[in-house]
Amino acid sequence: MNVLLTGAYGRCGTAIIDQLHDEPDYEFTYLDREEPDESSTYGDHDTVVADVADGLAVREAAADQDAMIHLAGYPFTDGTWDDVHQPNIIGVLNALEAAREAELETVVFASSNHVMGMYEAENAPDLYYGSEAPFQLSHEDPVRPDSYYGVSKSFGEDLCRYYVENYEYPKRAHAIRICSVRMPEYDHPYGDAEHGVDDGEYERGSDEYEQQVARMKGMWQSRRDFGHMIDCCLQTDEAGFEIFSGVSDNDRRWYSIENARETIGYEPQDNGEEWDAPPE
Amino acid sequence: MNVLLTGAYGRCGTAIIDQLHDEPDYEFTYLDREEPDESSTYGDHDTVVADVADGLAVREAAADQDAMIHLAGYPFTDGTWDDVHQPNIIGVLNALEAAREAELETVVFASSNHVMGMYEAENAPDLYYGSEAPFQLSHEDPVRPDSYYGVSKSFGEDLCRYYVENYEYPKRAHAIRICSVRMPEYDHPYGDAEHGVDDGEYERGSDEYEQQVARMKGMWQSRRDFGHMIDCCLQTDEAGFEIFSGVSDNDRRWYSIENARETIGYEPQDNGEEWDAPPE
Repeated sequence: MNVLLTGAYGRCGTAIIDQLHDEPDYEFTYLDREEPDESSTYGDHDTVVADVADGLAVREAAADQDAMIHLAGYPFTDGTWDDVHQPNIIGVLNALEAAREAELETVVFASSNHVMGMYEAENAPDLYYGSEAPFQLSHEDPVRPDSYYGVSKSFGEDLCRYYVENYEYPKRAHAIRICSVRMPEYDHPYGDAEHGVDDGEYERGSDEYEQQVARMKGMWQSRRDFGHMIDCCLQTDEAGFEIFSGVSDNDRRWYSIENARETIGYEPQDNGEEWDAPPE
Repeated sequence: MNVLLTGAYGRCGTAIIDQLHDEPDYEFTYLDREEPDESSTYGDHDTVVADVADGLAVREAAADQDAMIHLAGYPFTDGTWDDVHQPNIIGVLNALEAAREAELETVVFASSNHVMGMYEAENAPDLYYGSEAPFQLSHEDPVRPDSYYGVSKSFGEDLCRYYVENYEYPKRAHAIRICSVRMPEYDHPYGDAEHGVDDGEYERGSDEYEQQVARMKGMWQSRRDFGHMIDCCLQTDEAGFEIFSGVSDNDRRWYSIENARETIGYEPQDNGEEWDAPPE
């Protein structure tokens, strides 16, 4: 299976490379705005250097592919409309147009928990504590975006559904509402420097620090669980549009993993609750 | 109450003017891309001539208003992305930005049944017949757009919700999934020339004609019911985001009017079933 991966060298893209690059089932083409850092693990990968806002470049990269994993986009919730308009709105349109034209079977779209972020905002911080969350958000709940970024991802979900239900290709599209995938060196609920859990912004042991850790015990998706979820999306024969929560089997998660379990056989191995402390 | 009405001279805008222009509660400002036809009923109305894709023009028109009814946009399901991008995507963004900046209390957004159009497409034509539809689509059902137009309206709904839940203004936004409002001369389920029910495209009495009429008996919203729904939206004190189905109390409707009944006191007076034949 030939698979185009856009946004290949970010946190989520590298999790896919780490888990699936050597799988004999897949032949990946990596697309990113820049070549990978030569000194990194990914330094020797051939890369299509392109911006997903460039429709022609995406169409060229999609030719002869069987599937596309579309991760590229502006990733922050503090973005303005101008930040998300080209990379996210036009980017996902270009991805789906390319998939339709090149007759790709499968599109996997990196959506985000921020499509549903107001459910969290309304219930935080109580939501983060206790052994089980008071609700489980699923693909059937109305969207409540918390940012232009979240709105742009909701738009991408709607567009995926429209393409699957109205055109011959793609046959299936899966929108993953990614909760929190971390870099390899911080692949646990204690986070990474970029995300403010363990970067010195919060004093270790402070209330703010504990709150961030508690949140992450609900939101974390380990890199192997994320890679496994992508693998499940690529392997299924079912046609149609689906929304999955990208999260590990965390006791205190408030995003439901039932649809992913039932539809694509997602079997996460990790649970944020198993981490009492960051590794030494 | 000062009310800005965008897209004032279309089918829906004129229904509002007909019902509410003379109400002492309201002082309307009409915005459209063109002056009204001088020979029309609306020929003597002052008009702000502007395109809603022009953010500055919308902001200027919104100053000193209390509410905005945002109807302007590209209205056809056969539109391409380029057709809907500026008028609908950028248009609703401009409307909400203007509402936030000018501190408008209320936004009413003309969404569309085409946000949910695939439920109909999947169940037509059986859905049109019988005394009661097999399902009632509500604000709680996942969106299934049938066109770029439908996707653009779903985007508008999401953006309305985001603004209401994240900014001080607007205090409330109501997205109305308009089913079928007709011109005054065809204000019944037998339709108008533009929409192919009674324009000679289908021979009267043919299967196609009967099917179109059956559909319209479910989808019609009379001009007085639409005007009344807008009035309810403007009069409510409740804050928040809501989605309503814009449809009369048709026996065979498949869009639920419960949320509008309960939230804003919508009491439609018309029912497509009362029409056995077009008026003489």
